[in-house]
Amino acid sequence: MITDKSPLAPAEFATLGTVGGTQPRVSRAHYKQWDRCDLTFVELGEGTTAAGVTTQSRCPSPEVEWCRDAMTHGKARALIVNAGNANAFTGNRGRAAVEAIAAKVSGHLGCEPHEVFIASTGVIGEPLPIDKAEAGLEAAFSAPEASWEDAALAIGTTDTFPKGATASAVIGDTTVQISGIVKGSGMIAPDMATMLGFIFTDAAIDAGFLQEMLSRVTAKTFNCITVDSDTSTSDTVLVFATGKAGNVPITSFDDAGADAFAAALEQVCLDLAQLVVRDGEGASKFIEITVQGAESDESARRIGLSVANSPLVKTAVAGEDANWGRVVMAVGKAGEPADRDRLSIRFGATQVAKDGLAVEGYDEAPVAAHLKGAEIEIGVDLGIGNGRATVWTCDLTHGYISINADYRT
Amino acid sequence: MITDKSPLAPAEFATLGTVGGTQPRVSRAHYKQWDRCDLTFVELGEGTTAAGVTTQSRCPSPEVEWCRDAMTHGKARALIVNAGNANAFTGNRGRAAVEAIAAKVSGHLGCEPHEVFIASTGVIGEPLPIDKAEAGLEAAFSAPEASWEDAALAIGTTDTFPKGATASAVIGDTTVQISGIVKGSGMIAPDMATMLGFIFTDAAIDAGFLQEMLSRVTAKTFNCITVDSDTSTSDTVLVFATGKAGNVPITSFDDAGADAFAAALEQVCLDLAQLVVRDGEGASKFIEITVQGAESDESARRIGLSVANSPLVKTAVAGEDANWGRVVMAVGKAGEPADRDRLSIRFGATQVAKDGLAVEGYDEAPVAAHLKGAEIEIGVDLGIGNGRATVWTCDLTHGYISINADYRT
Repeated sequence: MITDKSPLAPAEFATLGTVGGTQPRVSRAHYKQWDRCDLTFVELGEGTTAAGVTTQSRCPSPEVEWCRDAMTHGKARALIVNAGNANAFTGNRGRAAVEAIAAKVSGHLGCEPHEVFIASTGVIGEPLPIDKAEAGLEAAFSAPEASWEDAALAIGTTDTFPKGATASAVIGDTTVQISGIVKGSGMIAPDMATMLGFIFTDAAIDAGFLQEMLSRVTAKTFNCITVDSDTSTSDTVLVFATGKAGNVPITSFDDAGADAFAAALEQVCLDLAQLVVRDGEGASKFIEITVQGAESDESARRIGLSVANSPLVKTAVAGEDANWGRVVMAVGKAGEPADRDRLSIRFGATQVAKDGLAVEGYDEAPVAAHLKGAEIEIGVDLGIGNGRATVWTCDLTHGYISINADYRT
Repeated sequence: MITDKSPLAPAEFATLGTVGGTQPRVSRAHYKQWDRCDLTFVELGEGTTAAGVTTQSRCPSPEVEWCRDAMTHGKARALIVNAGNANAFTGNRGRAAVEAIAAKVSGHLGCEPHEVFIASTGVIGEPLPIDKAEAGLEAAFSAPEASWEDAALAIGTTDTFPKGATASAVIGDTTVQISGIVKGSGMIAPDMATMLGFIFTDAAIDAGFLQEMLSRVTAKTFNCITVDSDTSTSDTVLVFATGKAGNVPITSFDDAGADAFAAALEQVCLDLAQLVVRDGEGASKFIEITVQGAESDESARRIGLSVANSPLVKTAVAGEDANWGRVVMAVGKAGEPADRDRLSIRFGATQVAKDGLAVEGYDEAPVAAHLKGAEIEIGVDLGIGNGRATVWTCDLTHGYISINADYRT
């Protein structure tokens, strides 16, 4: 599926730090009529803790329900990811496929079924074929260890490039590694969770605290991106901590190294989230929207997402048009506290509107130059409080229409 | 601006019933560099009552604020509509322009300024030039009476065809007429109000009751359409009742003919609202989404709009793809009560998903045939209650991108 790579893609896949206690393998389950790896099996060492966040959709996939239950146990020995079939909205047959996968993997590893985390992505409404899944698992069990780039490719669907990010942190006198992969390109409007993202660390972290950190970090990273305002039925971000680095286990923010680890985790999540935006369907420009002066941080985030989700703002950016009137419109429709006569708007470094009206005779040249670039900054200052947030999105182009008016067929 | 007429446009402008006590006139104020009428002046007879609904945007135009104040008086002698400049986000200079227009018209007619209703539409952020407005008003005062089609053309901006609707009702032994015009094509996601719509009736109706009826009717008509999920700063629907038909004035639903009038008003509003969707920017298909079995009518409306605003649903329809998985996604993201395993979905007359999974071997031929047409019906049954709603939208095509990536320049 890696054709017509997004113009916003990084030059190459990041070199991910090695995480002890993780072994990725990939295989061909042939979920669609293609000749590519579409099943990913990551074996995790004994003692691995797990945490996750999942979609707020009222119609979640059986995989999402499975992971929610598995998270309550907080222990993991394996991650299975199927690409090409989301297995969502498939009734009992979808649930049976998830249970069959968990049974087969737990039998192979000699672990509990709830230590097997499962995610699927692709078309909605077709039950995942159990026979293909089982054959794919058999092939994966005996496959040689794969690279993280191989795994990042195998979990993708409409993605145009594989996505990974890495960071390290020092806990006591131990350096721990955090490496993650993510897939996503369309149906991206996370709400407490997002697309499929998998993060691995060799740090030893208590499962409950891992969950607390992930939820906190998600609010500022995955939950601050949008491609098209559409929230998937299958969004899942999981983090696994194998403990192989040998640090003193972290159980709360009072522990030495907890803040450093949380910061590194946030950096990896932010990198992964932004990579999803950079692969937004049809994207030609990466847009960062910074909102300040709002009544609260949450209000700022909602206003930022209202701007980021506005088709008229996104098409204006695609057209390299400094149409700040559309930004005003999007702020106004957010339903959050705002005072039209205190509102200021910036494109790049140039203030174009201030205190409720256009800046008289502002210099249009730097604005035009900024909009011709591929990295666009829009600043909104509400002027009524101290709330702030930054969100990221991409523009809306003919490419999005072309991709989505003919996806399934 | 009437180029490339929408393929969903009606064959011709409706023949609007004559409404005594109304005299439309149009003129060229040259708000933009074009040679077309862009100022509309409708003189209303003495004794005309007025009601209206306006945008919920937190950044409304000064015209919207003016109309809100004028509505509290409930009396009208004139309506002025400016096209090509929305006068929104223009600070004190925008307010000054509105006051200047009201002063000039009230001087001409010998009425109170608050009996002059004013609406403007077009680019945001440029103060309406007072000199052009005053010259345009002078020209309109002495212009010959215009047709409603002329007025419908003069209030348009990116509209590709003029839009009008008409109905009559019997009150006692008097037949009254309701005729309206509307403009709108993009930035359409009404929330308690919408775009610019103007409805005229010769019935005698108490202003307070007129407001009550309009609010009730708007909830089922203008508030049930969307083109692109973007809510305008200038949305305004006004209704004027001249009383020239001579019926016994209506003051409540207890009065004879009130129900008939309300039904006729709803029909006109529905026709106008649907005409806006039929002129949705880039639209190639008109989509009716009926939601039933929801927890409440309001919940059904929210779910319907979530489906109607989903870029992935809209592009699937554009691509004539029966991708009901995207409908499931949009139901799921609405945040309203839903049970995945009771959800059913229909395209045209064909049930494609029932009780949470695909209908085994449903006949794809009638679905494909239905999707090839220009009038698409999607049915959603939540299966959990008695709430129902119908909403209307259009598909999302390359045309929308082309129009909006290069509008202002």
